[in-house]
Amino acid sequence: MLDRLMAQLAPRRAVHAHCDIPCGVYDPQQARIEAESCYKIIQKYNDSSDELFRQRCTHVKEERAELTKHHIDVMWHDYFKPEHVEKFPDLHDVCWKASKQASQVKRTADIAEAQKLLDLIDRIDHMWRETGGAEATRMQQLEPVGASGAPKSDSISDSKAAAADAKPA
Amino acid sequence: MLDRLMAQLAPRRAVHAHCDIPCGVYDPQQARIEAESCYKIIQKYNDSSDELFRQRCTHVKEERAELTKHHIDVMWHDYFKPEHVEKFPDLHDVCWKASKQASQVKRTADIAEAQKLLDLIDRIDHMWRETGGAEATRMQQLEPVGASGAPKSDSISDSKAAAADAKPA
Amino acid sequence: MLDRLMAQLAPRRAVHAHCDIPCGVYDPQQARIEAESCYKIIQKYNDSSDELFRQRCTHVKEERAELTKHHIDVMWHDYFKPEHVEKFPDLHDVCWKASKQASQVKRTADIAEAQKLLDLIDRIDHMWRETGGAEATRMQQLEPVGASGAPKSDSISDSKAAAADAKPA
Amino acid sequence: MLDRLMAQLAPRRAVHAHCDIPCGVYDPQQARIEAESCYKIIQKYNDSSDELFRQRCTHVKEERAELTKHHIDVMWHDYFKPEHVEKFPDLHDVCWKASKQASQVKRTADIAEAQKLLDLIDRIDHMWRETGGAEATRMQQLEPVGASGAPKSDSISDSKAAAADAKPA
Amino acid sequence: MLDRLMAQLAPRRAVHAHCDIPCGVYDPQQARIEAESCYKIIQKYNDSSDELFRQRCTHVKEERAELTKHHIDVMWHDYFKPEHVEKFPDLHDVCWKASKQASQVKRTADIAEAQKLLDLIDRIDHMWRETGGAEATRMQQLEPVGASGAPKSDSISDSKAAAADAKPA
Amino acid sequence: MLDRLMAQLAPRRAVHAHCDIPCGVYDPQQARIEAESCYKIIQKYNDSSDELFRQRCTHVKEERAELTKHHIDVMWHDYFKPEHVEKFPDLHDVCWKASKQASQVKRTADIAEAQKLLDLIDRIDHMWRETGGAEATRMQQLEPVGASGAPKSDSISDSKAAAADAKPA
Repeated sequence: MLDRLMAQLAPRRAVHAHCDIPCGVYDPQQARIEAESCYKIIQKYNDSSDELFRQRCTHVKEERAELTKHHIDVMWHDYFKPEHVEKFPDLHDVCWKASKQASQVKRTADIAEAQKLLDLIDRIDHMWRETGGAEATRMQQLEPVGASGAPKSDSISDSKAAAADAKPA
Repeated sequence: MLDRLMAQLAPRRAVHAHCDIPCGVYDPQQARIEAESCYKIIQKYNDSSDELFRQRCTHVKEERAELTKHHIDVMWHDYFKPEHVEKFPDLHDVCWKASKQASQVKRTADIAEAQKLLDLIDRIDHMWRETGGAEATRMQQLEPVGASGAPKSDSISDSKAAAADAKPA
Repeated sequence: MLDRLMAQLAPRRAVHAHCDIPCGVYDPQQARIEAESCYKIIQKYNDSSDELFRQRCTHVKEERAELTKHHIDVMWHDYFKPEHVEKFPDLHDVCWKASKQASQVKRTADIAEAQKLLDLIDRIDHMWRETGGAEATRMQQLEPVGASGAPKSDSISDSKAAAADAKPA
Repeated sequence: MLDRLMAQLAPRRAVHAHCDIPCGVYDPQQARIEAESCYKIIQKYNDSSDELFRQRCTHVKEERAELTKHHIDVMWHDYFKPEHVEKFPDLHDVCWKASKQASQVKRTADIAEAQKLLDLIDRIDHMWRETGGAEATRMQQLEPVGASGAPKSDSISDSKAAAADAKPA
Repeated sequence: MLDRLMAQLAPRRAVHAHCDIPCGVYDPQQARIEAESCYKIIQKYNDSSDELFRQRCTHVKEERAELTKHHIDVMWHDYFKPEHVEKFPDLHDVCWKASKQASQVKRTADIAEAQKLLDLIDRIDHMWRETGGAEATRMQQLEPVGASGAPKSDSISDSKAAAADAKPA
Repeated sequence: MLDRLMAQLAPRRAVHAHCDIPCGVYDPQQARIEAESCYKIIQKYNDSSDELFRQRCTHVKEERAELTKHHIDVMWHDYFKPEHVEKFPDLHDVCWKASKQASQVKRTADIAEAQKLLDLIDRIDHMWRETGGAEATRMQQLEPVGASGAPKSDSISDSKAAAADAKPA
C-alpha cells in the first residue's frame, strides 16, 4: 500500500507535499462497505425469527465490525497527516468515536447504533474529501476494456471518472 | 456480509429476486483498491534504487495481490448469480482471467501487467453495474453528519449519492 | 506455493508445459478435509441438544466452510489452466457451484447440503486426477524415516506412493 | 473441526473411545502439502538467478513453513491422545523436532533441510496411520458424482477409498 | 476480550466505573513485545551480511510492526476512555505518533527508529499504569501450580504478583 | 521474531549459547493475556442472562482460546531448547496439557477449566523464568520518555526494570 502522490493527476494540490515519504491508496469506502454490512445484518437479524440464522448474524457482524475498525485505523494512522489535524481539530476525536462505535455495533442489534457508525465514517469520508479525496489517493477509472458497446447506466456517474474529468477545470 | 436487496432503494429491479436468500453488500471497488496499490507499488519499485525499499515493495505487493484475488473471488462466487451468467456469457472467463492476472502481478515489476489487472477488474465492475451496481448492493451515502457547513468539493460528485438522487422512485 | 512440474517424476506428461511458469503443489484434499469437517459438525449439531455446543458448531462450521471456499478458489484460479477448460467444458460451472454450495453449508444444518458439497469437491478432484493429479502436483511419499520396523497397516496403500510406483508402467 | 469417531466406518477400533468427547477430522497431509511447497520453492530458488523471483521464494516459503508448523501443532495437541503417547514414547519428540525443522526451513535454501522436514512429517503420518489413520479421521471418498463414465486413472488408487474398501475385512 | 473491572482486586479505584459496560484484559506489553522484536530484528539485520537472512529480517519486521500497530490501536480505541483523555490531553497524539512510528519502523533499518517506537509505547504504558494498570486490567498471577519447591529466581519480582500484594496497603 | 541473546544484559547465563543461531523475544504473558480473557469472558457469561451477549462470549472465547494455543505453541517449539527439556523432563507434557486445556476452555463455561488453563500457563512461565526469563528474552523497559515528572505508581514495580536493576554485572 506504499504510494506517492499521483502528481500528474492532481497538480493543483500543494497540501500533498507529505507524500515525499511513501503514502498509500486510501479510500474510506473500505470502512463504509464493512459498516454497511453490519447495518444490513442487524436489519436482517431483526426481521428473522430463525435461531440458526440469528446466531450467524451475530457472529458475522462481529467480524465485519472488526474489519470496519481496521479500515478506520488505517485512515487514522496511515492516511491523515499533521496538517490534516490542523485543518480538522476534531479529527482524532471523530476517528476515536468511530472506532468505539464499531465496538458498540458488535454488542447490539439496534439499527440506530449501526446508523451512528455510518454517520461517523461519513465524517471521516468528509475529511478525506476535503484533504484530497479520490483525486489524491485513488487512480482514475476509465471505461472498462471491451465495454465500448455497453456503456455504464447513465444515471450512475462514477466518482473517480468524474473527478478525473473535473481535474483540468 | 449477509444482505438482502434494499428493496425500498431499488424497487424497479426484479432481477434481484435471488435476494430472498441472504446476499451481501458488494462493491468491486474492494478489489480495485487493492489492485491500485499493486499498480502504485510497481511504479515506486521501478522509480527506486534502494534495495530495502524494493524488497518491501515485492513483499507488500504479494499481500495486496492476494487480497485482490480474494475480493475478485467474492464477486465471482458470492455476488454473481446464474441470471448474470446468462446475460454475460464470458462472466466466468473474465473473473478467471482477473484472478490469474492478479497472480501474474505478484510475479512481475511490469506496470503493464498491473494495468491489465485493473482493466479486468473494470470489466467485472461493468458487469456489476449492469446487474444492479451500487443501487442494489450498496447503501446510499448522505451528507456527513455535522458537515452541513462544509460541503463536499463540488467537482467531486459521489457516485452513491448520485445514484440515490437519480432514483426515479 | 510456487512450483514447477516435477519433470523427472512425470516425464510422459506434455500437458504440463504450462509449468514453465511457476505452478504449485496442489491437492483438492485441502478443500475436502475442510468440507468433511463441515459434514461432521452438522452431524454432531443435529445429534446434540446442548445449546452451547450447538452455537460453537454454527460458528466453527462458518470458518471451515470459508476455508473450503478458499481451497476451491485455489484449485480454480491457480491450478486449472486453459487446456483443462477445453477438456472439461463445465470446469468453471463445477467450481462455481462448489463455492456456492460451501456458502450454502454455512447457512444450514441439513446434512444433505454438506454431502452435496463433498460431491462437488469430488468432481473437482476428478478433473484434477484426469489432468495430472498427485503425480503432477504432489511429491511422492516414501516410507517414513525410522519406520522400517513398523510398516504401514497393509490394507491402507498410500495414493502418492502408489502413483509413484505406477509411473514407469 | 469438531468431530467424533466415525464409529460405523471403523467398528474394529476400540482405541478411539476417547472420541466420545469431540475430536476432529485430521490428516497429516495438511502439513505435508505445505512442506512440499517449501521443498519445491527451495528447488526453484536454487535453480533461478532472477533476484525478484528469489525474493518472492524467500517470502512465500516463510508463509508456507508457518502453515506447516500450524498443521503439525494441530496433529500434536488436537489429534494425539495420551494412549498414543504410550504407544509411541517419542511422539512429543518427533512433533517437536518437526516444528523446529519447519523453523529451520524458513532460514535456509538447503534442500536437504526441506527433505528432513518431510521425513519428520512422515513419521507423524506413520503414527497417525498406526493409531487409526484415514479410517478413523477422514470420511470415505466415493466415485465423484457424474463421473461414472470417466473412471479415475486406474493406476492411482485412492488411499481413502482403499481404506473404506478394506474396512469390512 | 470482554471484561469488567476485577472489582474485588482493586476496590479502591472508582475511576473504572466505565467498566459497567464490557471492557477487556489489556496490557501494553502486547505492543511492546512486538516492538522489541522489531528492535532486535534491526539489530541482527545490521550485524549480518547474509543476503537471505537480511531479506527475511525485512519481511518478518514488516509483520511484527503491523502487529505492533494492531496492539497500539487496541489500547487506543478499546482501553482508553474519555476520562483518560481528560487526564492526559496528549493521549490521542501519543497513540497516533506511536502508530506512525511503527510504520516508520517498517521502512527502515535504523535502530534509533525502533528505539523511538519503544519509547512511545512506554508512554502509552505510563498512561495505562496511571489509569489502573495491571491491577485493573490483568488478573493476579500466583505461584505456579506444582512449583512450590521451585521458587522463582528471587531477583525477578513479578509485577502482577507485586501489584496484588501491594493492594491492601 | 528473530532474536539473539541480549548478551550484555545477561552475561552470567551460559545456557543461552544456543542463541548464536536466531532466537526470539519471548514472553509467556502473550499466552496468559489471552487465557485471562477466556477466564473473564466465562465469568461474564455466567453473570449474564442476555442471550445476544452470551452468544458473543462463546464466539469471542473461541478466538481467544485459539490465540492462547498459538502462543503456547510458540513457547513450546520456538523458545524451549533441548537443554530445557533435560532440566524439566515434564516440559513436553506441561505444554501439551496446556494446549489441550485451551481446547477444553473453548468447549465449556466452567470457570474452573479456565483456572486450570491459567495454572498450566503459569507452569510454562515458571520454566521460562528458570531458564532465562525476562532477562534473556525481553528488553529492559526504562522510564517512559517525557514521564520524568510522572513517576509510576510506586507500589507497582516493573518486572523488567527490576530484573535489569538486579543484574549484578
